[in-house]
Amino acid sequence: MNTISDLTSPSVFIGKQGNGIISFGSGQPDLPPPENVLNKFKVRSDLRYGLIQGEEILRDRLSEEYTASNVNNFVITNGASEALDLIFRAMEDGKVLVPRPYYYSYPFILKRTGMEPIYTDLNKGRIDLADFKKKIGDCKAILINSPSNPTGRIESLETLKEIERITEELGVYIVSDEVYKDIIYERENYLIQGDQVITVNSFSKTYAMCGVRVGYLWSADQGFVNKVINLKTHTSMNTSLVGQDMAIEAMKAPRSYIDKQLKIWRKRRDLIYKGLKDIGLDLWKPEGAFYVFPRIEKPRQFVWKLYQDYNVITYLGEWFGSPQRVRLSYALKREEIEEGLNRIEDCLENMK
Amino acid sequence: MNTISDLTSPSVFIGKQGNGIISFGSGQPDLPPPENVLNKFKVRSDLRYGLIQGEEILRDRLSEEYTASNVNNFVITNGASEALDLIFRAMEDGKVLVPRPYYYSYPFILKRTGMEPIYTDLNKGRIDLADFKKKIGDCKAILINSPSNPTGRIESLETLKEIERITEELGVYIVSDEVYKDIIYERENYLIQGDQVITVNSFSKTYAMCGVRVGYLWSADQGFVNKVINLKTHTSMNTSLVGQDMAIEAMKAPRSYIDKQLKIWRKRRDLIYKGLKDIGLDLWKPEGAFYVFPRIEKPRQFVWKLYQDYNVITYLGEWFGSPQRVRLSYALKREEIEEGLNRIEDCLENMK
Repeated sequence: MNTISDLTSPSVFIGKQGNGIISFGSGQPDLPPPENVLNKFKVRSDLRYGLIQGEEILRDRLSEEYTASNVNNFVITNGASEALDLIFRAMEDGKVLVPRPYYYSYPFILKRTGMEPIYTDLNKGRIDLADFKKKIGDCKAILINSPSNPTGRIESLETLKEIERITEELGVYIVSDEVYKDIIYERENYLIQGDQVITVNSFSKTYAMCGVRVGYLWSADQGFVNKVINLKTHTSMNTSLVGQDMAIEAMKAPRSYIDKQLKIWRKRRDLIYKGLKDIGLDLWKPEGAFYVFPRIEKPRQFVWKLYQDYNVITYLGEWFGSPQRVRLSYALKREEIEEGLNRIEDCLENMK
Repeated sequence: MNTISDLTSPSVFIGKQGNGIISFGSGQPDLPPPENVLNKFKVRSDLRYGLIQGEEILRDRLSEEYTASNVNNFVITNGASEALDLIFRAMEDGKVLVPRPYYYSYPFILKRTGMEPIYTDLNKGRIDLADFKKKIGDCKAILINSPSNPTGRIESLETLKEIERITEELGVYIVSDEVYKDIIYERENYLIQGDQVITVNSFSKTYAMCGVRVGYLWSADQGFVNKVINLKTHTSMNTSLVGQDMAIEAMKAPRSYIDKQLKIWRKRRDLIYKGLKDIGLDLWKPEGAFYVFPRIEKPRQFVWKLYQDYNVITYLGEWFGSPQRVRLSYALKREEIEEGLNRIEDCLENMK
């Protein structure tokens, strides 16, 4: 990166670390995976192809978490990314309603799979039901993400149930990206239900194993599941058996593993939320995931100067469809968050 | 499967095993992976995202096998399947010349990525240079596969060099699927070279680790490599780090590991080739990979009867673009090949 116009995507910050850099960039847990995924883990001796749909024992274990489900409802994928890609390749064409701001890969994946994204702007980080109702009739699907990256917000149960009702009535798919389902501060997770629902999930955030790339999709629509399996037969075949075995091990971790992590996330959330408020920034209180998404005046100059002069990485809101804001991940140690906040305050002072 | 018309794709035989079934179906080694991939293998403790392009140490190790290469020329993928899928998604549109018979996923992947397959019929299992020259001018790429699945044939050095020369002149890509490069009986492997070359490869066949799903592509065209990386950033992110670590370990296996396997493959090749000849079938002598592709009268009836009455699985040639033939994989123990040959002979007797 040489000039401010090089700030084109999160990938410009890849490999920027060390040398006193504090990165609020990367969207992944810094906490350790469950013990049994690491030290005690044994690689199976039979490394021949597995079922394209995924290992039955893993799908069986997952089916315990989903109401009225069985092994046929799941396809294990190379992370949630591949699940999303396969879902929209299976749909082939049509419009998809995308709440904006959105996870930055959504528009790219939709366009590259032949779908057409249309947008509904969030109201204070939540779906605007009036606008949703106006636009959903034209669509083949709505893609929701609660808890949301980048907003850190969750949708209310009322909204989720209203979306369930309307999409069911219209025969529109809900694609629900729930990769942050185990990082919610305000209530229990609510699993969206219905014949039109396709859920996308992952072991990455819950078990801190992003690099192993194991995710999955769930659907009650057997015809749709079969379309996805048929695609995956040709595009990547089974998801890594060793990764799936690690996911099976991860699911054996006690509930206390997740609870302990949630406690840490909550403390960090409180720290960064208060810190940014005290600096005078306008932001929503995060209710899930590990992102804050404050409004910033001159966000491009801020992200550029903060990196160049203060060694702090943040992501431009425009990459997520929200040019007035900046995204900060708080997947960082307490001291780093505190030091980062100090540098942000200094940077903003110097921009006045 | 209830009737002969259910013979629609190799997937109809998935899960058919045990109960005395002999399967000449599955295209994967039955031999064991290198020892160091299994018992001594330790899972890394940091499971955070890796580089989309793949682990640098693995790309560095691979670059030693490719003339005038460096780490920038490689992208590590979820098997050769994902490499092919990404390559053609990156090309976006255009015609691709495909020698027929072909690996059965090729037409599917080409159509689903927006490419148009056009075919050149092989002559005795080898590329017909006259037909190739007639058709290549209209194409964006040719997709070659030597050693070939399903034919077991390899192209001559003269043909490969002529294809190199013509595609270079026309600015057409060669996509060279070389997953069987370490299973060649007739000569050393020849690595196709040139600015227009994109090589697809895998650890699956060489190291008997199909289910781990680690493959890669190589290209000297940095712009093309970057397009693939950009796509993979959104469609699946890094290939499983644990799979990549296993691939790094596999590459430490001594050359004797590969030589020993090749010796076994050659014995099996000789056994099945002679066996089918003795039965009176018309087939090419396999020069690489582990398939034979004999002509069969009434192939649908043969595959059906052989499975129903003799408990033997074979694949229809029509799935590979060759309706007069049947594919048999000889990734089986000697005794199973012998017993399978006996049953095939009985079946053919009974069809007279």
